[in-house]
Amino acid sequence: MMKLSDLGEFGLISQIEKAFGKKSPGAPLGIGDDAAALFVSPGKTLLATTDMLLEGVHFDLSYTDFYSLGWKSAAVNLSDIAAMGGIPRFSLTALGIPEGISVEQVNEFYKGFKALIRKYKVDLVGGDTCSSEVDLVVSVTVLGEVEEKKMLTRAGAKPGDRIFVTGTLGDSAAGLELLLAKGKGLRAKGKDVNSAFRIPHSALIKRHLRPVPRIEIGRKLALSGCATSMIDVSDGLSSDLAHICEQSGVGADIYAEKIPLSKEIKAAAKQLKTIPLHYALSGGEDYELLFTVTPSKLKKFRSLRIPSREIGVITRGEIDIIHEGGERRRLEPTGYNHFRK
Amino acid sequence: MMKLSDLGEFGLISQIEKAFGKKSPGAPLGIGDDAAALFVSPGKTLLATTDMLLEGVHFDLSYTDFYSLGWKSAAVNLSDIAAMGGIPRFSLTALGIPEGISVEQVNEFYKGFKALIRKYKVDLVGGDTCSSEVDLVVSVTVLGEVEEKKMLTRAGAKPGDRIFVTGTLGDSAAGLELLLAKGKGLRAKGKDVNSAFRIPHSALIKRHLRPVPRIEIGRKLALSGCATSMIDVSDGLSSDLAHICEQSGVGADIYAEKIPLSKEIKAAAKQLKTIPLHYALSGGEDYELLFTVTPSKLKKFRSLRIPSREIGVITRGEIDIIHEGGERRRLEPTGYNHFRK
Repeated sequence: MMKLSDLGEFGLISQIEKAFGKKSPGAPLGIGDDAAALFVSPGKTLLATTDMLLEGVHFDLSYTDFYSLGWKSAAVNLSDIAAMGGIPRFSLTALGIPEGISVEQVNEFYKGFKALIRKYKVDLVGGDTCSSEVDLVVSVTVLGEVEEKKMLTRAGAKPGDRIFVTGTLGDSAAGLELLLAKGKGLRAKGKDVNSAFRIPHSALIKRHLRPVPRIEIGRKLALSGCATSMIDVSDGLSSDLAHICEQSGVGADIYAEKIPLSKEIKAAAKQLKTIPLHYALSGGEDYELLFTVTPSKLKKFRSLRIPSREIGVITRGEIDIIHEGGERRRLEPTGYNHFRK
Repeated sequence: MMKLSDLGEFGLISQIEKAFGKKSPGAPLGIGDDAAALFVSPGKTLLATTDMLLEGVHFDLSYTDFYSLGWKSAAVNLSDIAAMGGIPRFSLTALGIPEGISVEQVNEFYKGFKALIRKYKVDLVGGDTCSSEVDLVVSVTVLGEVEEKKMLTRAGAKPGDRIFVTGTLGDSAAGLELLLAKGKGLRAKGKDVNSAFRIPHSALIKRHLRPVPRIEIGRKLALSGCATSMIDVSDGLSSDLAHICEQSGVGADIYAEKIPLSKEIKAAAKQLKTIPLHYALSGGEDYELLFTVTPSKLKKFRSLRIPSREIGVITRGEIDIIHEGGERRRLEPTGYNHFRK
């Protein structure tokens, strides 16, 4: 294992440069100058998003491999571009690396990062690498572009619009729970980790460690003109729906039994003795797209065959969840909220 | 003092939104959507830079106030845009905040950040706020723009070009030393901090805590077409000159006695019993501009009256420093290098 102290900051930057290729048509300088120089498509609106991932808060190196961490650092930012209906173009990575992390581990991080961004033809165009006192610190910025008139925001949902979500919800949170349980919970209770999990949970764990941003779907929706608002499910359905409702000045009725759950989460929930719906509403990190479709565009929308499920309707009232049997309850935003205990 | 746990993540974001104003002509969505939507001037090249500031590595809260930290976080990024000859336009801040930091302290950070970015009409358009386990973590991204043909990079210096630097060098490093000495060094030696520093060192300390990016000078140079390469002095003259030489494939002769030193650093160096030149070569964080001017443009350059000093010449050889009396020595890059001890 090579030590970062043997390579030095500029040695590391030069390795990253080699791994990603110095130049690209959109970023003619490559990395390594004071700032990246970028060509944005004429007439497009620039999109910019930044997300920080901190050791001990967003990830734990006892169950996260560096490849997955690099992948996920890119994915969470790309997902924000997807949620605007945009095309991701460029990325910048800032890493704070504590002693004890090897060059190989940093390279693994960048391998995972590259594997995801190259899927979407995104370039790494700059960043910062520095030593950190205690924890591994990751901060990624992604730039993208979108036609101004096609851009989808959190504002724009109107009463009567139908609410849709792609994929299945809660998987990532359940995957995290399984990772944590594997690590300590079950052992503390004296249970054998392997026998407690008879069925393979790798699908859930993969969704937590290597989420896939819904770039193509976001783009298709934006170009179609069918959607009125969009957000990615990063904090949990209850919180992300609240963001749309707040910014749009509307309410919503959500039907509990319509919320899409994977067969994997149903099986895992039985074993974890918990309710899958809880993960879907409060878990977050699914990086699915939550969007609203205006009634007049429903036919066109269905013709697009976007893999998604209708889960409710925008209203003039509060945000409610209607459970099987008709019981109506206020849906409080119980997703992740930093600083709150 | 208000606790962040009482305000919560979304309460904090809403406070920041109020402090900075929700929208601007260039950033019509303001902050608070999945990504910022930005209008870049047509035909301009986009510039992007990101810099991380970590507690215990880049700053110490025992001698850095939050206002200065916010100011400096913006300044180090704006300086990168200045070094390309660009106009800074937009900024994004990612903060990882440990327990014990109050809402008032975070607000002070943003006051300092705002004070600097508003000087240059830069908007805060997005970011991320999260809790941190141990240390305060700051990561800032700044976007700017420049005319493609006017952009200045580290590559472009040619043998015979004269080397110039703005302002004075070493002040920031000396200021840091004074802050550290005030805190512990002198006390450990049993000396009285106040009597040991008879002359006011506030100018040096201010240069460390609240550096001013040379935006106007960078811009003037770029538009003039006189400069062939440029970098900001963030790592120390020896390292930053090496960056220019490496990227341009050239060498340089630097004249030690021409390196601009402030009267404050000369006075402080006597008291600190060290050589000011050491700070200038290895200190870094001065955020002055180091640039080269082609001989045929020297007359035009001088007519611009850019406050700067000629310190040497680009050569085909190595990077040498010529001391008073004519002694020539190899100038090794001894500026800051993360991971090296």
